Amino acid sequence: MKRRTFFKAGAAATAALASTSLLANTPRKLRLASSWPKNFPGIGTGVERIAERIKVLSNGTINVQVYAAGELVPSLEVMDAVSAGSAHMGHTSSYYAIGKNPAFNFFATIPFGMTANEHYAWIRYGGGQQLWDELGAEFGVKPLLAGNTGPQMGGWFVKKIDDAEDLQGLRLRYPGLGGELLRHLGATPVNIPGGELFTALQSGTVDGVEWISPWNDLAFGLQRVCKHYYYPGFHEPGHGFALYINLELWNSFSKEEQAIIAAAAEVENSAMLGEYNAHNQSSLEQLIKEHEVQTHKWPEDILSRLAAIVDDVIADDAARDPFAKKVYESWKSFLDSQKQWAETADIPYLAIRK
Amino acid sequence: MKRRTFFKAGAAATAALASTSLLANTPRKLRLASSWPKNFPGIGTGVERIAERIKVLSNGTINVQVYAAGELVPSLEVMDAVSAGSAHMGHTSSYYAIGKNPAFNFFATIPFGMTANEHYAWIRYGGGQQLWDELGAEFGVKPLLAGNTGPQMGGWFVKKIDDAEDLQGLRLRYPGLGGELLRHLGATPVNIPGGELFTALQSGTVDGVEWISPWNDLAFGLQRVCKHYYYPGFHEPGHGFALYINLELWNSFSKEEQAIIAAAAEVENSAMLGEYNAHNQSSLEQLIKEHEVQTHKWPEDILSRLAAIVDDVIADDAARDPFAKKVYESWKSFLDSQKQWAETADIPYLAIRK
Repeated sequence: MKRRTFFKAGAAATAALASTSLLANTPRKLRLASSWPKNFPGIGTGVERIAERIKVLSNGTINVQVYAAGELVPSLEVMDAVSAGSAHMGHTSSYYAIGKNPAFNFFATIPFGMTANEHYAWIRYGGGQQLWDELGAEFGVKPLLAGNTGPQMGGWFVKKIDDAEDLQGLRLRYPGLGGELLRHLGATPVNIPGGELFTALQSGTVDGVEWISPWNDLAFGLQRVCKHYYYPGFHEPGHGFALYINLELWNSFSKEEQAIIAAAAEVENSAMLGEYNAHNQSSLEQLIKEHEVQTHKWPEDILSRLAAIVDDVIADDAARDPFAKKVYESWKSFLDSQKQWAETADIPYLAIRK
Repeated sequence: MKRRTFFKAGAAATAALASTSLLANTPRKLRLASSWPKNFPGIGTGVERIAERIKVLSNGTINVQVYAAGELVPSLEVMDAVSAGSAHMGHTSSYYAIGKNPAFNFFATIPFGMTANEHYAWIRYGGGQQLWDELGAEFGVKPLLAGNTGPQMGGWFVKKIDDAEDLQGLRLRYPGLGGELLRHLGATPVNIPGGELFTALQSGTVDGVEWISPWNDLAFGLQRVCKHYYYPGFHEPGHGFALYINLELWNSFSKEEQAIIAAAAEVENSAMLGEYNAHNQSSLEQLIKEHEVQTHKWPEDILSRLAAIVDDVIADDAARDPFAKKVYESWKSFLDSQKQWAETADIPYLAIRK
């Protein structure tokens, strides 16, 4: 528990916020730093919808100005900016902060872990939000779930992957524990912002990348540099995005203002997922028919090796920090129960619907 | 298109609302008629949460009083009450109104149809809301999605069912198209309100019932009269509940008021699903361990017969009304695309996670 970090962040935030008098005045004008390119489908438009929803629900008394990645702060430093008070809010992935604490992984997505609905259920009814609040408070931010991708694709590769041997020595853009898993199979995981994926692939800086799913990947033009597209997304079964609010600011809000921001985030959590679901299949067909993309199920050799090590990789990573271990235990127990329910509910239903 | 019904409902609504001056005054006091027993887990508590959320988001200017099934109107007549203006809002299932138009089925749930996430995606991004608005306007109501059960269990039976022969002549409480399917296999479907299921089973009025899933079914005590519990819920893969608002009243709301009610409903749409997901597995274990309930996968004989006829049963039912046919076509095209995406996304992911 890094109390020093907390007090430092808290003090910086108070100073920054006091300078613009945001703690007292209305209408409030809030700066939201996003990790995504401007108006990017799904996550980008989702952030704009959050801002618009807050404005309408507050009858114009809370105005949120969205800044795309790089406009206010770099994509991967959004939480830091909210923590320090240079942005009032931020929309980002929790797992960009795993350098600070591995516990952040659990609030984004975990390989072989929870689907979007299960993740939401854990956050809201399984104790997840309390743990996330506790972690966020260490860094001076209030976290809220604010978007989910649903099941992702497994990623893009310049060269076809036939077995684990083909992964040896590859430089792959897989953030979080997905990358950690691939490291165990001999690859070198790196993290670079979404907006730089195309260039990184084109220049040969990386040999493969994961991004999201067909609708988003098509928009980035990844099909122009890669033709091999793998599934399922073992590494990200449903990425939950975070809306962070500077904690001092959050605590200064009225109950109504907090409810407005929480509702705007929570509506987006399902709206974004709905938008991905509505667009993915037609985008996938476009990738295959118009761009000669080949989809491949991950080779069994790779899937079975990953499945064999994933539990240990997750547990070992969490064991690096006592709080992360506590989060892991809550998460794991909830996941086990969800997996059992899926055996009675989702899995047999989807099987008979074919 | 029953224009006469619309004008009649509209006139009645205006009269009823004018009498309590609700079109003009604030704070607004609104009566919400629910189809569910008081504080019943999931749907019952979900309605209370909608009311509470509206109150907080509106800073107390909109107060919603929830009336349980039978307190204001009977469970199955909630939409009629909202239509006529005797209730301002209602929380119910769309498919209780299929006697008025078979199109209502598509806004609740369809056998072998969409999951909760797919249904939401169709309503929000696939043209579903526009069609539902059009249908609702015929009856003087504005419809909003406001809760989902997720995949249901297949139902409770007093006697064990080994094949389709065992369904012959049984009286089964399966509303909507699930019941229609079972009729084709020789059963007699009936609809009775949820609150009367236990008594109906105990008195032998019915031989089997579907309700929701373990968490809710346990609360109703169905395990005390039935020991055979079937899965998967082929008939209701994700029941989407409706919040109806009297259309004249809805049109009188400000943009902010409409946004508040819409956000309160939309948050509940995922909150309720999360609550079911969080509780179902532990309730299922309780049913099995403490109440000697036996779970059975539906016999293959029954599943294959149902799968063989389901497309025709749905299409034929919708063909009874031109508007229902239009809804069916939108729904079917969206479902087909979702089924394909599930083959790449959900199904292979859930398979590797085992």
